[in-house]
Amino acid sequence: MDTPLSFQDIKDAHNRIRPFINQTPVLTSNSLNAWVGAELFLKCENLQKIGAFKIRGATNAALCLSAEEKKNGIATHSSGNHAQAIALAAQNLGVKAYVVMPDNSPTVKVNAVRGYGAEIIFCTPDISARETTLDKVIKDTGAAFIHPFNNYRIIAGQATASKELLEEVRKLDALIAPIGGGGLMSGTCLTVHYLSPSVSVFGSEPKAVDDAYRSWKSGTLQKNETTKSIADGLLTNLGDKTFAIIKDHVKDIFTVSEEEIVAAMHFVWERMKIIIEPSSAVAIAAVKQQKEVFQNMKVGVIITGGNVDLAKLPFKTVPPSPGHRQSALDFLSIQPE
Amino acid sequence: MDTPLSFQDIKDAHNRIRPFINQTPVLTSNSLNAWVGAELFLKCENLQKIGAFKIRGATNAALCLSAEEKKNGIATHSSGNHAQAIALAAQNLGVKAYVVMPDNSPTVKVNAVRGYGAEIIFCTPDISARETTLDKVIKDTGAAFIHPFNNYRIIAGQATASKELLEEVRKLDALIAPIGGGGLMSGTCLTVHYLSPSVSVFGSEPKAVDDAYRSWKSGTLQKNETTKSIADGLLTNLGDKTFAIIKDHVKDIFTVSEEEIVAAMHFVWERMKIIIEPSSAVAIAAVKQQKEVFQNMKVGVIITGGNVDLAKLPFKTVPPSPGHRQSALDFLSIQPE
Repeated sequence: MDTPLSFQDIKDAHNRIRPFINQTPVLTSNSLNAWVGAELFLKCENLQKIGAFKIRGATNAALCLSAEEKKNGIATHSSGNHAQAIALAAQNLGVKAYVVMPDNSPTVKVNAVRGYGAEIIFCTPDISARETTLDKVIKDTGAAFIHPFNNYRIIAGQATASKELLEEVRKLDALIAPIGGGGLMSGTCLTVHYLSPSVSVFGSEPKAVDDAYRSWKSGTLQKNETTKSIADGLLTNLGDKTFAIIKDHVKDIFTVSEEEIVAAMHFVWERMKIIIEPSSAVAIAAVKQQKEVFQNMKVGVIITGGNVDLAKLPFKTVPPSPGHRQSALDFLSIQPE
Repeated sequence: MDTPLSFQDIKDAHNRIRPFINQTPVLTSNSLNAWVGAELFLKCENLQKIGAFKIRGATNAALCLSAEEKKNGIATHSSGNHAQAIALAAQNLGVKAYVVMPDNSPTVKVNAVRGYGAEIIFCTPDISARETTLDKVIKDTGAAFIHPFNNYRIIAGQATASKELLEEVRKLDALIAPIGGGGLMSGTCLTVHYLSPSVSVFGSEPKAVDDAYRSWKSGTLQKNETTKSIADGLLTNLGDKTFAIIKDHVKDIFTVSEEEIVAAMHFVWERMKIIIEPSSAVAIAAVKQQKEVFQNMKVGVIITGGNVDLAKLPFKTVPPSPGHRQSALDFLSIQPE
């Protein structure tokens, strides 16, 4: 394979970012295994700094900049986990961060980015406004742009999640991750290629935003036609750098429905007591769906993050049944504020 | 102290139950520390088998029974975590479990107990019916009764949670746990007494069910007047065995409001991405409330469990503001079923 990243690059990235990240735990669950019909090893990046794996790539990319390149700070556009990752990476490095966010971003996300000391520049919520605004910010400030995924330093950083998993669990048959822009997926491909080439690598996507599936099938980059999925980390299209790697290394990509995503998310919350975001549930839903592929296999799953708005959960609420004793939770909900 | 449990008893309990429990992780969070003004080390028994520490005591008590004592199975009354703990402990030992539950118990809990193979005997939801029904079950079946907390084998089992914490984190200034029937709290007291006597031990309770606080203050066993707290694991009264230990060892007990409990629970879910039940949030709320006591201390916190009904969460839901872009989560909630 003609790849611009060697295993040494990934090892260097890991050593570089180690002081700034958590070595996240790998969790297992008998009840989850019974539910999906395979033995899962969850690499819990929801328990990572900023609640998502994105801090790995952002930190690596920021640390790779020269003193001259980063003296005016770093900049990006994102309303998601990459925004928080860039903000915290900049704070750790003692440089400024500029984050372009749509002006209708949820307050919880705006506050999180601001909480890490970043300067937020709002734009109208469309791609051209985002790019124009970012260009202007870079021109005005001289900050260095760090792309969320189509960047080899980002890919090398994200590759360290599967590196930790493969170093901790040495007996995996397969590894699966969700695909958004492809930074995590392409990094995962490279780690497996260099470290454990016998492990089969699978991707997973919501059916509603299946650009990676269609790109992989057709061999040419495809775009999503909507952004209508609950898996808000996976709405973006692949980049050319990430696709080139994914194309060569992924064994198959499975797509799942919105209902399958919510069911997997609910199962993990209820039984494993960890909060995973819908994008992470996509990978688990895919394993459950593809019973013939994964039956009795030992499968590593990258749990990408846990950033969800607790005020807007997709779980059905049930009214108390008639004659149902008032529970403690009922009690509080009828208290005056 | 004249205690019926030696440190050897606790070590024996630990060795006995080890094959049946998880060594749960100790998690930390910079944002939680900033929020409460102390350095917290969360012993995550929400990630324990059955989602709560109760499996420790139940397993120890079941394993201590002679072949003759357990040949007809084990029995208890509980609608909470002890019910699941007895059910799983019995399954692990290959004996029958009989669990008396109120006939209005939430389906999710009934299913969980049944899922571990226990036989459920329903009764009307009051104390006298519960005791009469349990007596009849024991008479009819010859099963051995295992009390949820007022039992030294249970206390020795629960003591192993703080034993693991103190063995992993050797620099604690204080340790705090919530108090229900007192099995966990009294076990925690004994572990600290034997292993790290310089560590201050604190209890925490909902204001609404503060029998332990009033018992500790007055020196005589008090009872709760209501069971109206969201902390559904802490509604019960202390037992004489647990109170005798708590009385001698706890430095102070702090009581918190329902609002403080929900705020602490929300913070941990949102920032740490782990699901903790309201009873666990009580201890964190107490640390936050008592800033002068805990300021800059290293505080161990026993996170008792994560069993909550996801269909009945106490978090406020916010309607989308006017002009707010439809988010992915909004999208799913308007899908037809």
